[in-house]
Amino acid sequence: MFDDVRSEAFQQLHARVAEVARYGAAAAVLGWDQETFMPPKGQPARARQLRALAQLMHQRGTDPQVGKWLAQAEADMRSQGWDPDSDPARFLKVARREYDRATKVPTEWVAEFAQLTSEAKMHWQQARAQKDFTLFAPYLRRIVAMKRDYAAFFAPYDHVYDPLLDAFEPGMKTATVQQLFARLRTEQVALLKAILARPQVDDAFLYRPFPVAQQKAFVRWVLEHMGFDFEAGRLDESAHPFTTGFSVHDVRLTTRYNETDFFGQAFYSSLHEMGHGLYGQGVNPDYEETPLAGGASLGVHESQSRLWENLVGRSRPYLTWLLPHLRQAFPGVLDDVDLDAFYRGVNKVQPSLIRTEADEVTYNLHIMLRLDLEIALLEGSLDVDDLPEVWNRRMEEDLGVRPGNDAEGVLQDIHWAMGGLGYFPTYALGNVMSAQIWQAVRRDLPDLDAQMQAGRFADLLAWLREHIHRYGRKFEPLEVLRKATGQDLQAEPYLDYLRAKYGEIYGL
Amino acid sequence: MFDDVRSEAFQQLHARVAEVARYGAAAAVLGWDQETFMPPKGQPARARQLRALAQLMHQRGTDPQVGKWLAQAEADMRSQGWDPDSDPARFLKVARREYDRATKVPTEWVAEFAQLTSEAKMHWQQARAQKDFTLFAPYLRRIVAMKRDYAAFFAPYDHVYDPLLDAFEPGMKTATVQQLFARLRTEQVALLKAILARPQVDDAFLYRPFPVAQQKAFVRWVLEHMGFDFEAGRLDESAHPFTTGFSVHDVRLTTRYNETDFFGQAFYSSLHEMGHGLYGQGVNPDYEETPLAGGASLGVHESQSRLWENLVGRSRPYLTWLLPHLRQAFPGVLDDVDLDAFYRGVNKVQPSLIRTEADEVTYNLHIMLRLDLEIALLEGSLDVDDLPEVWNRRMEEDLGVRPGNDAEGVLQDIHWAMGGLGYFPTYALGNVMSAQIWQAVRRDLPDLDAQMQAGRFADLLAWLREHIHRYGRKFEPLEVLRKATGQDLQAEPYLDYLRAKYGEIYGL
Repeated sequence: MFDDVRSEAFQQLHARVAEVARYGAAAAVLGWDQETFMPPKGQPARARQLRALAQLMHQRGTDPQVGKWLAQAEADMRSQGWDPDSDPARFLKVARREYDRATKVPTEWVAEFAQLTSEAKMHWQQARAQKDFTLFAPYLRRIVAMKRDYAAFFAPYDHVYDPLLDAFEPGMKTATVQQLFARLRTEQVALLKAILARPQVDDAFLYRPFPVAQQKAFVRWVLEHMGFDFEAGRLDESAHPFTTGFSVHDVRLTTRYNETDFFGQAFYSSLHEMGHGLYGQGVNPDYEETPLAGGASLGVHESQSRLWENLVGRSRPYLTWLLPHLRQAFPGVLDDVDLDAFYRGVNKVQPSLIRTEADEVTYNLHIMLRLDLEIALLEGSLDVDDLPEVWNRRMEEDLGVRPGNDAEGVLQDIHWAMGGLGYFPTYALGNVMSAQIWQAVRRDLPDLDAQMQAGRFADLLAWLREHIHRYGRKFEPLEVLRKATGQDLQAEPYLDYLRAKYGEIYGL
Repeated sequence: MFDDVRSEAFQQLHARVAEVARYGAAAAVLGWDQETFMPPKGQPARARQLRALAQLMHQRGTDPQVGKWLAQAEADMRSQGWDPDSDPARFLKVARREYDRATKVPTEWVAEFAQLTSEAKMHWQQARAQKDFTLFAPYLRRIVAMKRDYAAFFAPYDHVYDPLLDAFEPGMKTATVQQLFARLRTEQVALLKAILARPQVDDAFLYRPFPVAQQKAFVRWVLEHMGFDFEAGRLDESAHPFTTGFSVHDVRLTTRYNETDFFGQAFYSSLHEMGHGLYGQGVNPDYEETPLAGGASLGVHESQSRLWENLVGRSRPYLTWLLPHLRQAFPGVLDDVDLDAFYRGVNKVQPSLIRTEADEVTYNLHIMLRLDLEIALLEGSLDVDDLPEVWNRRMEEDLGVRPGNDAEGVLQDIHWAMGGLGYFPTYALGNVMSAQIWQAVRRDLPDLDAQMQAGRFADLLAWLREHIHRYGRKFEPLEVLRKATGQDLQAEPYLDYLRAKYGEIYGL
């Protein structure tokens, strides 16, 4: 679609960007394989391969020639008067942003960081298996130091955390996140307190045995039924569920199976990853291998995964549709569980240690803890060695539970080992956006509940495709949100959603 | 191990070769994924990714700077008097060969050929599914034309086929192959004729149902027992079994499962690929990411796969060990089949249409047909459009069977769609080498039969590791053969093996 842009510089830039995107897709395949199928002894060679690709991509992407093409294409755009919201103009805008960011970072840093995080990931896995943070601490110390160097490349900044956050959530500021989080925190803590004063929900039936072979068949059937295209994607297994993609026509999801925790593991993590996957499959295919490919940000991506996992997947209408199918696929297992009990069970609120298993009310509190600790590490007010104790104390203060060991605490997530400081806030942003988007969906699809109850998701998916997915990275996260919802980012829809839903469930 | 080579140019060359090897490993991962797990719609993006990597590798590998480093390192070698059989000297020799070959071919040709063969592979699959050669013919025509161009880059040559063959079997000449094949042909046709005059062997029991889940478990157990390291490799499924590797510590095998053809499909193809895989896992790890990594040639590689598949896997001592394990893994299925019947069944000789399913006596005849047709296509004496008819007529003449459609005939193999003209002869070379190597093994391990009968393969594997595997590409194919067997390539051991084995089975 960009072939008719009358700018030689644009076309040369386009070719280079496509070249780098192909290397990026190759690196993504290697990353996917590493988590799904790679035999353990393959790790050192894989780390070297990924380092080589990271270095190559940075070199080819920051080549001064790219800067010249970019400047010339921008001049062509001005002289030819392109519509600033046209695809080619937005192509240049995103390419400019990426080039300016990438050229601030030396290739040596990129290569060293790729190597360090590969090693760190291995040592994190070992540390986690042995429940001993001290095995991982030296790597985290180096990662924090390198991330501090990274922030310095972008000086001056308002907040040392800004450049890190901006890498995952373009345009987002630490101050904005902190303000939002303060508001969420007050309300979610109050809601949690009220819930904990009420009688507990019984969800023991969720942990009955569901044979793994049938779990696999059922999850695949559900995802296919809900709109995920298995001709253009897969669902595999990995220790930590994730989604990646090498093309809009090749999107890979993973999940994990546990016979006695079907819903906590395979079912809801698959719905979650499917949300990412539907976004990935829904981007305008003309954007393949351009700066407009991919999702607008991790926050917008998470809004999609959380929407399908929670706003859809934990809603009463959805469960009304699902329960009979579950009964059919797993004969006898849920015969004594009625819809109301099932709905309350999958929405049980209970402070817990593990973020990925947290309910909707407590989830954001896990994120806030991570944000505060990341900032303290970067600012140097918290030493890496003190992290486990500070983590555990904060868990006790915020959630009233204390990890029994580092694996249940500070070592639970892979993100720091991957070098992803700046990443966690996007999870809470995604939650907030998901409810705001859901409000807009409901306005446009007044009979959505009836549709979901009948197992019809095509209108919902079409709405998301039209208002969000197809744009890819053409618009910035908050632009996407405004276009889809007519409003700026705000906490109220999410808080309203939580209060209404959990107020009803817990009789508040 | 090359760190102490006192040549700055050598070290720079080493770094560049390692870089290119890492891209090559990435491309191999993408190729593996394409055949095993990639969803169908992912194909076009994958073709672009593979083209980009092929182009990159050629550019980085043929950079004039590489030539300068190479020349300087060779000068350093001469002035420092390196042992010509030392690893660094052989490193330079292989690197020189590769550089000289690669620089003869323009990068444009490499990129175009990568694109063409990606497309051709898709169209070959469709043509094969529809049993219609005309759908594939235009692509094969372009491939033949490009291969002719390729040969021309290496002019002058003795034979137009020489440069193609040399790409897969370094140092091998078409004339040598033709001479060898003429000898094999006379003897194998005579042997076949004698066999066909004898009563047929009953192998109907091989096609009894063997549940696929148990096939998978059994094959994995056998491979692990025989020495394949699953911590450094995998066995997956693909339409066409193959072996690839991204490191000596990450070797991937594939096979396919058919409930009513356990031996023809999963069992013997897995033993075959395991032979390749053991070679891949056995190369000196110090050679990783150097020109000495990988196997000496496709022929030497095939000698290993055929050795494990046939010389071991279809021998009476091996089957003596295997049969009780089969009876245990598949209760009741083979209770009425004794060792002699089993041995005769898996060694049944019967002219058939499909190369990969051919017995040992007829296998090479399939290869000879392909070699003759490839040469005729290249020389222009055979037009692509006439290929199916010529193929079918030749099958009738040589084997007395005529394909009922193109899928059973000219479309059965993926090699031409991959651009692999020049590849097929290495299969027959591998057969011949395997018997020559086997003779040497037997000399050194006089109680090998007793070992195999007891399910002990460690001494055999250690012998192959010591005499073949560990050298990687350090020595040329015929050097490896001489080192391992003390002799030049010769047909007699293979012909003796066939005559003795099948003479006994068929009472000749």
